[in-house]
Amino acid sequence: MRILILGGDGYLGWPQAMYLSAQGHEVMVYDSLMRRHFDLENGFDSLVPITTPQERVAAWKEVTGKEVHLRIGDTRDWTLLSKAFQEFQPEALVHLGEQRTAPYSMMDREHALFTMDNNVLGTMNVLYALKDYAPDCHHVKLGTMGEYGTPNIDIEEGFIEINHNGRKDTLPFPKQPGSFYHLSKVHDSHNIMFACRIWGLRSTDLNQGVVYGIETEETKLDPRLATRFDYDQIYGTALNRFCAQAAVGYPITVHGKGGQTRGFINIRDTVRCIELAILNPPEEGGYQVFNQLTEQFSVLQLAELVQSTAPELGIEVALEHIENPRVELEEHYFNPVHTGLLKLGLQPHFLQGAVLIGMMQAAVANKDRVDKKLIAPTVSWRKTDNAI
Amino acid sequence: MRILILGGDGYLGWPQAMYLSAQGHEVMVYDSLMRRHFDLENGFDSLVPITTPQERVAAWKEVTGKEVHLRIGDTRDWTLLSKAFQEFQPEALVHLGEQRTAPYSMMDREHALFTMDNNVLGTMNVLYALKDYAPDCHHVKLGTMGEYGTPNIDIEEGFIEINHNGRKDTLPFPKQPGSFYHLSKVHDSHNIMFACRIWGLRSTDLNQGVVYGIETEETKLDPRLATRFDYDQIYGTALNRFCAQAAVGYPITVHGKGGQTRGFINIRDTVRCIELAILNPPEEGGYQVFNQLTEQFSVLQLAELVQSTAPELGIEVALEHIENPRVELEEHYFNPVHTGLLKLGLQPHFLQGAVLIGMMQAAVANKDRVDKKLIAPTVSWRKTDNAI
Repeated sequence: MRILILGGDGYLGWPQAMYLSAQGHEVMVYDSLMRRHFDLENGFDSLVPITTPQERVAAWKEVTGKEVHLRIGDTRDWTLLSKAFQEFQPEALVHLGEQRTAPYSMMDREHALFTMDNNVLGTMNVLYALKDYAPDCHHVKLGTMGEYGTPNIDIEEGFIEINHNGRKDTLPFPKQPGSFYHLSKVHDSHNIMFACRIWGLRSTDLNQGVVYGIETEETKLDPRLATRFDYDQIYGTALNRFCAQAAVGYPITVHGKGGQTRGFINIRDTVRCIELAILNPPEEGGYQVFNQLTEQFSVLQLAELVQSTAPELGIEVALEHIENPRVELEEHYFNPVHTGLLKLGLQPHFLQGAVLIGMMQAAVANKDRVDKKLIAPTVSWRKTDNAI
Repeated sequence: MRILILGGDGYLGWPQAMYLSAQGHEVMVYDSLMRRHFDLENGFDSLVPITTPQERVAAWKEVTGKEVHLRIGDTRDWTLLSKAFQEFQPEALVHLGEQRTAPYSMMDREHALFTMDNNVLGTMNVLYALKDYAPDCHHVKLGTMGEYGTPNIDIEEGFIEINHNGRKDTLPFPKQPGSFYHLSKVHDSHNIMFACRIWGLRSTDLNQGVVYGIETEETKLDPRLATRFDYDQIYGTALNRFCAQAAVGYPITVHGKGGQTRGFINIRDTVRCIELAILNPPEEGGYQVFNQLTEQFSVLQLAELVQSTAPELGIEVALEHIENPRVELEEHYFNPVHTGLLKLGLQPHFLQGAVLIGMMQAAVANKDRVDKKLIAPTVSWRKTDNAI
């Protein structure tokens, strides 16, 4: 199958591109290199060294004999984007081509508007490109579990049947996103649902939990094929930051009480979930939603897990609660349904044990690359002008 | 009270500015003149002649002795927008400053992205301006009943209590908008709700029905104070188009079966509703929603109303069903709650009788200005490249 991957140079995009290439698909990566630009903008770098996009693709060919096509372009650039659709004629589209973190979107007005512009208007270009040049292509879009927020009821997969005053309807699950980034994903979901309805496109919206891990069957083949490991305050998720903190003997810092509970998924399962989604398109005009997570943890549980695992690497690490830079509930109900992808055949890989030890070993092996001053949060949700 | 009106030169904005000025408020109009530009772009014009923004403001001063401050600027222009906030220090903000029709947003990719950019990113600038320069200002934002779509349950005012698997929560009412314009308003609503939550802003979101009528106490004072009467396929609502069709003896054209049912409100009630909203702000951090409509009609009911009223003006007019250019249900349940503004004191003015006759008389008086070829729909929801 011809599969176009928007954002195929990113943390998930690159392992996804290799995985699908390994399964025998013809893969084209389309990426603006925005994520690499953010490193330059803020003085960040991946904890595990990564090669350039060109070196990655060349190494993949050298190691496996398989070709991944590479195009540098932005979803906001209609000329380049529509050209990629016309020339490659994708049968499936994996859309990871967005600014992907909450703190970046909350830095200041400029970064908030950039996130909205890039994600929402970029995705609108994608929808028009599908309609005009690849109307039968199955659009697999990465959303986030953060779109739902933390309602006091079970979170269904995209839709909920509501009984009200003696009548009923199945409606989009109400969303309560917690940052301009998460809002941009909610807007995407509404726009995509509409495009399917009016133009007959077919889309799968994957509301993904927090992804962890850096190792897949393909990244293991050669160090030049490694994917990113972000530990900074903007792009590093809590688990990654905790691993980096443990590696350098810096106390593990929990935001607030730490009762904030989220869904999680191993990167090995992410690449498989996206393949399962690709292989199971909805009908023409259909818009289906899966919640893409396999476990759930509170921030405090993650911190304690890293702390209790550290001695296996000969490390002792303290745990501290710091002021929460976000505006969010620190104790809440959280029970998302996530059966759709399991029914399609997903066999989960869980965090505890070898996977977590592997992540911490990677952090320890690269501990000289940790810049401690990049870990502590300076971006506050309450301010509109946050310096890094 | 110092009241800033974004979009204060438009169909609603100008009568709103005069009304609030007449009540003794200090009013500043901030407008990009976008609506006038759309006339130039597409060869449209108001059926009832209107004066320039500068002439309007001068005439208002001449007739009433009251001053309305006028600034030409775009919400997307942060420098001008933030300057207006800093210099005028508004205590209330009426936000009508958006691209306001569905067909315009569905013309093609460029118009869709323009609508999203202008409305969503413009409103994000407004939220940042409020936070940075007028955090106590009450933000009264015009949304639309079209945000809800046509669910098979009663439509509540913004929020709905959902009972699910033995638990309950009050959540944002699920939205199913039917055009990129309506989507942009849904995105605004989500963004505003979030800004209230994290920054403590206070906002009222008015989900307004279709507004009809051109006469308020203030527009009547002088012909130079008139507001727009749009009858074209892009900016003219069904009722306005039907009045224009009757005036020139062109058959009244109903889209599809005509069972599409929507909420309606008289322009006299709109200006009063917005005042009522201004006078009843939510608490700090509060986000409240009112459904701003007083009656509901199907498209076919409106057509028959115009047809049956026409003989009172000595006109006979036929009625035709044409292919529906939109993708929408033509028969559906529709029962929106709209008690919030009534409880605040709204006394509705209804359509039938003198108001409708007045609208039809205005159309007849200006029938030489009707360009028949602008009435028939050419913008189809199913296409991505619509010529006008």
